[in-house]
Amino acid sequence: MNSTIEKRIAAIRQMLVEKELDALMVSIQENRYYLSGFTGEDTQFDESAGVLIISDRHLVLATDSRYELQAQSQAPGFDVVCYPKGLEKELPEIAASLGIRRLGVESVRISQKNYTAYADALAKMNPKVALTPTENMVESLRQIKSEEEIQRTVAALRLAENAFARTIDALRPGMTEKQVAWSMEKTMREAGAQGLSFPVIVASGPNSALPHAVPTDRRLAPGEPILIDWGARVDEYCSDTTRTVVMGPPDDHFLKVYDTVVEARDLAIAAIRAGAGGTGIDKVARDHISRNGFAGKFGHSLGHGTGLAVHERPRLSPIKNDRLEAGMIVTVEPGIYIPGWGGIRMENQIVVRPDGAQVLNDPAPFTPRIRV
Amino acid sequence: MNSTIEKRIAAIRQMLVEKELDALMVSIQENRYYLSGFTGEDTQFDESAGVLIISDRHLVLATDSRYELQAQSQAPGFDVVCYPKGLEKELPEIAASLGIRRLGVESVRISQKNYTAYADALAKMNPKVALTPTENMVESLRQIKSEEEIQRTVAALRLAENAFARTIDALRPGMTEKQVAWSMEKTMREAGAQGLSFPVIVASGPNSALPHAVPTDRRLAPGEPILIDWGARVDEYCSDTTRTVVMGPPDDHFLKVYDTVVEARDLAIAAIRAGAGGTGIDKVARDHISRNGFAGKFGHSLGHGTGLAVHERPRLSPIKNDRLEAGMIVTVEPGIYIPGWGGIRMENQIVVRPDGAQVLNDPAPFTPRIRV
Repeated sequence: MNSTIEKRIAAIRQMLVEKELDALMVSIQENRYYLSGFTGEDTQFDESAGVLIISDRHLVLATDSRYELQAQSQAPGFDVVCYPKGLEKELPEIAASLGIRRLGVESVRISQKNYTAYADALAKMNPKVALTPTENMVESLRQIKSEEEIQRTVAALRLAENAFARTIDALRPGMTEKQVAWSMEKTMREAGAQGLSFPVIVASGPNSALPHAVPTDRRLAPGEPILIDWGARVDEYCSDTTRTVVMGPPDDHFLKVYDTVVEARDLAIAAIRAGAGGTGIDKVARDHISRNGFAGKFGHSLGHGTGLAVHERPRLSPIKNDRLEAGMIVTVEPGIYIPGWGGIRMENQIVVRPDGAQVLNDPAPFTPRIRV
Repeated sequence: MNSTIEKRIAAIRQMLVEKELDALMVSIQENRYYLSGFTGEDTQFDESAGVLIISDRHLVLATDSRYELQAQSQAPGFDVVCYPKGLEKELPEIAASLGIRRLGVESVRISQKNYTAYADALAKMNPKVALTPTENMVESLRQIKSEEEIQRTVAALRLAENAFARTIDALRPGMTEKQVAWSMEKTMREAGAQGLSFPVIVASGPNSALPHAVPTDRRLAPGEPILIDWGARVDEYCSDTTRTVVMGPPDDHFLKVYDTVVEARDLAIAAIRAGAGGTGIDKVARDHISRNGFAGKFGHSLGHGTGLAVHERPRLSPIKNDRLEAGMIVTVEPGIYIPGWGGIRMENQIVVRPDGAQVLNDPAPFTPRIRV
């Protein structure tokens, strides 16, 4: 087991003491990888590649036989146990063999059905064990990135930015949103991305007014916003960036919206430092947008953490005030969405540092104008 | 609302009467689509594009503002309600406005955390409402396919088979598993697949002994098994097929394993008809493999349903005996896995008919031999 994983497990064991738990059962895919190196994927919401069970003295990786060899090779230091008839049948015995009485489970991932089934199986076979729902134990570690995790994120971002540059060079009126999205994806995959952070969003003209647009067969035309939101996964870490461009000369309205969004983004970034509250940062961008005549046109939160998952803690949100700490990676992505006309969003990824924000994106000046 | 969706909702309403529920909250993505046409996707396990609430007289689609326009346009007949601060905050009022007291939830999808949060919010704001965990209500409808759903599956299968034929034509010694997997994916996507059913599996030589192999940088060589398991999604429906091929002349051992697997598959298919039990069909294949000297080398179940999800009910499994009914689509995919040497799996998709199985795959004879 490498020293990074050893430190993370030590931190979880400290939390076990504080929360008066004997062990934590880790079922969230990203948390499993973070604490073991095991990359098995939960291919559907109702499927699982396994769980870690971390107690003060033991490390167990319980999985089914399809993942046994992979688990053994990727997670040295863990005892790999198989559950041929499902975890429910084996859990009472695993808990008994480890001497566990108070077992934490991850309440955002475990289904109501499985929670009940595990509790019933324990009540019947090993009634000394009590399940305790937990939240945010591993995630509270994951949200603070090491320099190595930051470098992996930058690698994903550079690969994604290169794909954008190549795709934009080839952009022509008449191409469809779907064609552009596929060009982005193909370029990232062929450059070595292990996958996408999420399906590429390409939204043009009025479609760009939908913050969650799915690419359509609509054809790009000069003068209208073309919003592209995309990310690559490299070495398990996610990038996430948005750029809005225009073919040919933009009109004054486009430029007014565009400049307001870029200013809002950069004002928010300038306000970020360790110790700041996410709600205050969100307000910096939101107020700038309102002051410029676009009150009510920025309907979503300002940003979110990225890492092994593309959406993770913390949030920069008007509702929940997460406190920023050094080493967090967050997106800053204000937008202005005008029904019928379109929308402009500009998103950077930054690292929170003690005295400010370090922007991870390519520092070269960016212009939305594409010659066609 | 189209007549297909009307019939499905009528069937759910009949189940509500039988189960003494006032309404069902549908949170599984495929179930939402099946009952409304809304294609919003849950992009991470802890994110949701919304829920349907189906009562005897009302149809509500609750979602967040990002999906509002899409929901209104795709799900006519549903009242679209937004929850700006999360479903937990709005649920008590929605339940009150619909006069619901007994609300079913999908226990395989709802997290322990959300179940508790919804129950607590209701207890506080609308204590007349009780949550009831349910299972398999919409899935029991989904597992019986209409002829239109079968045609959509066949369209996905034909597209996937064409991609396989083109990729196989270009197969050469020295190509890596990852390159072949990407060629499969790219060909499917460029032919119009909306996505993959699951990441393409390409496993060669000893790697093919892992039923759940992930493509590596291993280079293909003549004489060894090359196992490819892949599927396309077209018009929301999934295909799922496996072929194992060999470059150059196969040796007698390869042919013995290959012939045993194909025979096991075809014997199992010949045994399928409406009314048969899944365990009996599994046993037909498993016994044939054992009789030929490969007992214990077929470690997984024989097959599973496909549809909007690539893995759905029913299962053809030695453990759980699902009864087959006319209109079910299932895979039949026996394999023999020999550690150190490799594995051979051959998988077809079939429709259960009253008096037998209809194979959906291309009926042309298939040979595993590829000239190089």
